[in-house]
Order: sequence, then structure tokens, then C-alpha cells
Amino acid sequence: MEIRDKIILGSSKMFIKFGIRSITMDMIAEQLGISKRTIYENFTDKNELLKYSLEAGMVEQKAVVEEIFKNSENVIDAMLKTIKHNANTLKSINPLFFFDIQKYYPELYKLLIKKNDRQKISRLIEMLNKGIQEKIIRNEINVEIVAILIAEQFKMIGNQEIFPEDKFSKIEIFENISINFIRGIATEKGLSLIEKYNS
Amino acid sequence: MEIRDKIILGSSKMFIKFGIRSITMDMIAEQLGISKRTIYENFTDKNELLKYSLEAGMVEQKAVVEEIFKNSENVIDAMLKTIKHNANTLKSINPLFFFDIQKYYPELYKLLIKKNDRQKISRLIEMLNKGIQEKIIRNEINVEIVAILIAEQFKMIGNQEIFPEDKFSKIEIFENISINFIRGIATEKGLSLIEKYNS
Repeated sequence: MEIRDKIILGSSKMFIKFGIRSITMDMIAEQLGISKRTIYENFTDKNELLKYSLEAGMVEQKAVVEEIFKNSENVIDAMLKTIKHNANTLKSINPLFFFDIQKYYPELYKLLIKKNDRQKISRLIEMLNKGIQEKIIRNEINVEIVAILIAEQFKMIGNQEIFPEDKFSKIEIFENISINFIRGIATEKGLSLIEKYNS
Repeated sequence: MEIRDKIILGSSKMFIKFGIRSITMDMIAEQLGISKRTIYENFTDKNELLKYSLEAGMVEQKAVVEEIFKNSENVIDAMLKTIKHNANTLKSINPLFFFDIQKYYPELYKLLIKKNDRQKISRLIEMLNKGIQEKIIRNEINVEIVAILIAEQFKMIGNQEIFPEDKFSKIEIFENISINFIRGIATEKGLSLIEKYNS
């Protein structure tokens, strides 16, 4: 692995585990057993390092989801597996990470959310159409509207104004969004699959 | 009817039919057959008149929904009737009304949305709990999270950034939100009721 990728991977892990604010370039250098100068040779500042870390995280997440879809029997199977995977990912992230990124890096947060959005929505539309072909998703839905609605709901999970950290569990919000979403768009055949895979 | 209420009712109708920006105090006075001075004796300016019009609209909407709930067999019946009522209301509102209020009265819009929100969410929680007792809504859901999610989705209908006016029909967004929502939280018994009432 190139040193640049090693720094991105290492700092990502630290941000996810401890939040962003508390992690200094010194701590990253120490953890990776490299000099701080090496980090600065590759990244202008922590902001830039964080940006690449987040992008790498999204690329990885996308690859995992694609892998799940390749190895699933149908769209409902794939969606349920993705829900489980995402719930586990969510559990592994320190709430401080979400807090810090919104509070201290709002511009970066918005930019990445937006970028991720377009990709996510086209993938969702594709998936919904596949589910309609498989007759497990209702053909009355407007796939584009539904894809946007679910993407927007997922964004709410990290929104402190809508779901204050101290009152709501992120996992519980995520699960309520996901399960109700799939059940809502499923046909009778789709609902039987949900029961089957969840039992 | 007192003159103050008459002005609120009359101007509400005009705002809904033609949008807000294009309606002047002169036009309202003419339509109601009163002098502009009478309007200004009751309201400081158009902003204040609009504020009271919106509040009156919300009070009316609330009364209609309460009436529907009183005259329904169960929560699913009531929710489906409310969806139909709201879809019809939405059809009767000039899109300019939504455009104008967000563009020219953003502070008023935010304030009212917020006020309406708290009321709506407590009503929704009450309704969801009733549906759980009736065994037509799944008891695994977190009623508070689900109530917030649906209220937030309804707010998206008027959000130009999420659903640009020229690309999406408000009615279609509304219907996709509502139907998928009810189906998503319904038990098997609830789903049979949806089929029954919708056929």
C-alpha cells in the first residue's frame, strides 16, 4: 500500500473511533509510525486529509454494497443484507464523528453528502426498477420520488435538529427508516420474502 | 362573521388561488367589497394578514382531520381518508402559493412549519399508538421516530431543492409518501384493510 493510502486508511480508522476534533496530526503520525512531515508532504492540512478519508470511506461503502447485490437472490434479499451491513457500520462509528463533522466541517459535510446523493439515487432507482421486474416491488411507485425520499430520510439520521443525539439512537432511526421503507414498497410476494429472510 | 375573520377567510382564498405575491391589499378590499382602510384597521400589513391566514388554514385543516378521525372505523381508515382529503386540498392550491411563501416569506414559513410540526407529531404519535392497539400497525415501530420521519417527509413536498417544481408533481410526491408510509407500518391485518378501503 502506498504511504498516501496508508495515511488515509489509518486516519479514517482514528476519526471513526474517536471523532475528528480530538485527533491531531501528531496522533496520526504516531499511530502509523511515520513522521508528521510525511503526512504534510501528502496532505495540506487536516481538512484535506479528512476530505480524502471521507471519500475513501464512501468508495469502500459503495464497493461493499455492490458486492452484496452481486451475491443476493433478489432485490429484497440485497436490501435486507445492506440494512444489516449499514446498521453494523453505524454501530462502529463514534457519535462524536457525526457531531464533529457537522459542527466543525459543515461545508465539507454538505459537499460530500451532495456528491454521495446523486450516486446513491441513481443506484437506488436502478435497484427499484430491478425489484419491480422481479415483481417484489410494487409497480405503482414513482421510482425517482421514492429513491429521493429514502435518501433524504437517511440524511436525517445525522441531523441534530431533527433527531437530537441525546434523545434518539441512530441505529433505531436507521432501522425504522429501512424496514418501513422496504415493507412500504413491497408487493405481497416481496413481503413474504421479507418474512422469510428475517426469520 | 366578524369583519376580521371575513378578511382572513377572503384573503386566504385569494392567496391559495393566485399565489401571494400577485395579491395586493387593494385587490382583497375590492373582492370583499370593503375599504382598504378597514383592512389596515385590522392588520398592520400584508405580512401580518398572511400570518393569520396561514394560522387559520392550519386550524381548519386540524379540525377537518379530527372530524375524519371521529368518523372512521379504525386508524387505517382514518389515514386513508386523510390522504384523500389532503391530496384534494393540494390540488386546489396554486403552486405559486408554495413558491411565493418560501421565496418572499421564508421566516414566516419556517415559524409556521415549526409550530405546525409539534402539534402534528403529537397527533401522529397518538394515532400510531391507537393503530398498534387495534393491531393494524406493527408494534415493532418506534412511534416517535416514525412520526417525525413522516412529518419531515411531508415537509419535503414543498422543498424546491429536493423536489424542483418543474420536475415533480406535488400530488405524486404526496401519494408516494403516504401510501408507502402506511403500508410500511401496517400489520397483515392492516394491509388487508388498505386493500379493502382502496378497492
